[in-house]
Amino acid sequence: MESEAASADLELIGHGPHGKNKPETRLWLRMLSTTKLITTEIRRRLRTEFGATLPQFDLMAQLYREADGLRLGELSKRTMVTNGNVTGLVERLETDGFVQRVTPDGDRRVTVAKLTPAGTELFVAMAAAHEGWLRDIMADVDPAMIASLWSEIGAVKASASNHLSGSAFE
Amino acid sequence: MESEAASADLELIGHGPHGKNKPETRLWLRMLSTTKLITTEIRRRLRTEFGATLPQFDLMAQLYREADGLRLGELSKRTMVTNGNVTGLVERLETDGFVQRVTPDGDRRVTVAKLTPAGTELFVAMAAAHEGWLRDIMADVDPAMIASLWSEIGAVKASASNHLSGSAFE
Repeated sequence: MESEAASADLELIGHGPHGKNKPETRLWLRMLSTTKLITTEIRRRLRTEFGATLPQFDLMAQLYREADGLRLGELSKRTMVTNGNVTGLVERLETDGFVQRVTPDGDRRVTVAKLTPAGTELFVAMAAAHEGWLRDIMADVDPAMIASLWSEIGAVKASASNHLSGSAFE
Repeated sequence: MESEAASADLELIGHGPHGKNKPETRLWLRMLSTTKLITTEIRRRLRTEFGATLPQFDLMAQLYREADGLRLGELSKRTMVTNGNVTGLVERLETDGFVQRVTPDGDRRVTVAKLTPAGTELFVAMAAAHEGWLRDIMADVDPAMIASLWSEIGAVKASASNHLSGSAFE
């Protein structure tokens, strides 16, 4: 559903009649538009600086954290990439020499994907760049505000987690 | 790339080695995971309460704001749904009686999509529900914090806008 060329600002074209949104809706539209703006920027930089896509980066990030490798189903869950797409992504990264699929000792029925040394090296470079991009993107924001935002958005997240529909307690 | 069944918390499976992310990266991962959590919840409620999808809701929201209707290309830009998908969405909503395509007087080459009265009625109900869901989702957050978050996230958004790569001034 997301387009690379997306330029519209969701917040300016918000849902309700102009200027009548409730505070929670206004905050939500601002969170959404800010997240989309930054995501689009990160996609652009990954593409121009590494020729990589965001799903590739996310997938490599998960493999980086698991030295023993991950089964494709688990990788799909952790990256929010669908099962079918994970297979395609892994095959592509395998062709490029950044990922290998191996059968761990003791269980021949299982295949896990792991980063190759070249894949690890590439991911470390991408992660360092990603960190720098975020510092750049947030350069005008006071460090104290970055810390307080982290904690306040944590309160929003906790509230959302407490009010999910379809939970065991509803 | 997003899966409905997504349950992984991006923040817990962050990019860098455990606990070593820089403040901007930590904030970004928290923004991203919170936005995904709330988006997933809104998708779920749209589906269970209205049998609707998020792209349908977004598309109807844009048509609701434009009484004269919108051309499909413009609708695609405003919703960040690709052109091809917008056509499919509009056709589906037309079949259901919520959208009509009309040729405005004076320009027979142009077709615009508009909400029907039934579509307007449905969207008003969905928008009211959406507002209520957000109030519910953020119920544990202090109203003063909702206001300050709105303003602080605005600072992040402004900073991001100022540091986009590929702008005319770079």
